Amino acid sequence: MPPSQFTDLDLPNRILLGPGPSMVPPRVLRAMATPPTGYMDPTYLQVMAETKAMLRYVFQTENAFTLPISGTGSAGMEAALCNFIEPGDNVLIAINGFFGERMADMAARYGAQVDRLERPWGEIFTPAEIEAALRQKPYKLLALVHGETSTGCLQTRVDEIAAAAHRHGALLVLDTVATLGGVPVDVDGWDVDICYSGSQKCLSAPPGLAPITVGPRAWEVLEKRETPVANWYLDLQGIDRYWGETPAYHHTGPANMVFALRESLRLVAEEGLENRLARHRANAELLWDGLDKLGLPPRVPLDYRMASLTTAQLPEDLDEAAIRSTLLHNYNLEIVGGFGPLAGQIWRIGLMGYSSRRENVELLLALLKKLL
Amino acid sequence: MPPSQFTDLDLPNRILLGPGPSMVPPRVLRAMATPPTGYMDPTYLQVMAETKAMLRYVFQTENAFTLPISGTGSAGMEAALCNFIEPGDNVLIAINGFFGERMADMAARYGAQVDRLERPWGEIFTPAEIEAALRQKPYKLLALVHGETSTGCLQTRVDEIAAAAHRHGALLVLDTVATLGGVPVDVDGWDVDICYSGSQKCLSAPPGLAPITVGPRAWEVLEKRETPVANWYLDLQGIDRYWGETPAYHHTGPANMVFALRESLRLVAEEGLENRLARHRANAELLWDGLDKLGLPPRVPLDYRMASLTTAQLPEDLDEAAIRSTLLHNYNLEIVGGFGPLAGQIWRIGLMGYSSRRENVELLLALLKKLL
Repeated sequence: MPPSQFTDLDLPNRILLGPGPSMVPPRVLRAMATPPTGYMDPTYLQVMAETKAMLRYVFQTENAFTLPISGTGSAGMEAALCNFIEPGDNVLIAINGFFGERMADMAARYGAQVDRLERPWGEIFTPAEIEAALRQKPYKLLALVHGETSTGCLQTRVDEIAAAAHRHGALLVLDTVATLGGVPVDVDGWDVDICYSGSQKCLSAPPGLAPITVGPRAWEVLEKRETPVANWYLDLQGIDRYWGETPAYHHTGPANMVFALRESLRLVAEEGLENRLARHRANAELLWDGLDKLGLPPRVPLDYRMASLTTAQLPEDLDEAAIRSTLLHNYNLEIVGGFGPLAGQIWRIGLMGYSSRRENVELLLALLKKLL
Repeated sequence: MPPSQFTDLDLPNRILLGPGPSMVPPRVLRAMATPPTGYMDPTYLQVMAETKAMLRYVFQTENAFTLPISGTGSAGMEAALCNFIEPGDNVLIAINGFFGERMADMAARYGAQVDRLERPWGEIFTPAEIEAALRQKPYKLLALVHGETSTGCLQTRVDEIAAAAHRHGALLVLDTVATLGGVPVDVDGWDVDICYSGSQKCLSAPPGLAPITVGPRAWEVLEKRETPVANWYLDLQGIDRYWGETPAYHHTGPANMVFALRESLRLVAEEGLENRLARHRANAELLWDGLDKLGLPPRVPLDYRMASLTTAQLPEDLDEAAIRSTLLHNYNLEIVGGFGPLAGQIWRIGLMGYSSRRENVELLLALLKKLL
């Protein structure tokens, strides 16, 4: 191989306003570039402990088991499912978008009897209809997406849904990949049993880690398993042995990614979670107002519209792909189109973490006005 | 949470001479700190293509499917097994150390009928004894560790073992986590079907990615599966859809980790693979010579001693943990002890990637002379 075949990395500096990843703050990039230590180094174990403490803050939980899985958000989803499923278990998946479908796919791979509770893409569930479904048979687990990036819908009344699940003996798994750190998530207040997210959306660390938290009700189920988890890498009890009180080797910690996440969580703590959520909301409202004026109104009704990811309804005759391409190639700005049943009908505009800045909203609106 | 509770990351700059992770070159750290793009950005797709090309060089293969798995080396191991195992399949695992044990654990979780071919820790296998085991029943897969970091042994004659596996209709899975980029690995020349590694050893990128390559014989087995892979995140056909010719979303690419790996592979290409292997060998020989003089001889006979990870035999009465602690806390230098049957008997000294430098060897030898 000619050594000079590939040049020094020289990427455009994109303004990332799609459904994730979001932009990464300079402080996080710098922290990530810290030379790593060994994975049992006492200084690294301290970094892990601090990361856990700050994740508890952002998840709003006291759960002991709260840490980042060494994979992307989808690995978090899989960990949240495979650890609690044994072959033959009844599992109820609420599906109103792409990521609900993914959960059903994963759960079936682990031998679950999957029942699908479906709503069209763009709608959400009521606690009453979920409770009606839970009455049909004893489910071990109910899985639900908090914010669907495929549709821009935010599932409301999660606390009532959790209560319904617990009345019927089911654990609640909640996907907060697109919401944690940008939209209110209250794991203990809502009594969610298993909640996971991704590093690369409203937390604004690079993609590659999946924060997860597991409550006592769920941990008890884990300890009572009769079969080993059919996934070694994501086996939470194995991971707990490394992240727990007396650390023992499980897999080599992705140190630099943890450095990045720790710094992104420090930024959350410094801003304050309430201020951060308010910022996401204010910038989203600025965007919604501007989109309305451009004739590209948000597709989701206000009461279940996600602040971190907006879906803009497009006029039928718009060459939407051409505009997105111009935004990317001429202005280094990324927004993303719809897919599945919403292909060609919407744009997906994310204002997540460090991407959620007033100047980004104003630039996007100005460019859209120019290009439409 | 008080925002100032956790301070700016300020870690000691460790000289990492353990079994991994190794030290990361400044160029790699800088490349990793590049602001990420979207995961479907044409410039990022180009980065992926270049990373694949350079991985083929380091694996010495033409395999189309050659890419980094979005997890650590253990995720690579699991991907190499779970994709090729269906419930009830006969699998033969050659076990002469810790990582062979791990393979057996993983394979069993996917429903394989696991047969164990065992050697004591510190020995390797002959092709003849492996072929004798392969005669016992039709195995779908034989798994073998190239370099065992638990013992410092390098499995020799992999080409003959591969030929034996193929004579008996089995695929060969080879673990090169501790060897790729530091010790000769020749995937196509040896006819290895599935080979995986880790980013954080002889490639000297940070931990968090697992390069893997899959040959045509193995890919055919994948395509003939009757059951879905019981692991969504590591399903190679799903991953291939993202990394292939017409990329489609699977999971969000860990962009910054890929930037880092790409740069570490550029360094391999610039140095040249042969020069790099020669450097690892020369520095290992310098270490071996010095250890001999200190009365801490390499434990593994020369003909199957690994250049990237040396196990030094310790005198019985040595307080080895105290010396390691002094090295770490007073000199910022990490070496690691033995475990399992070798606990207390050995030190594990890695000279991998950017850690494999003459000055590191001389410093370690000088400090040991002082402290012994």
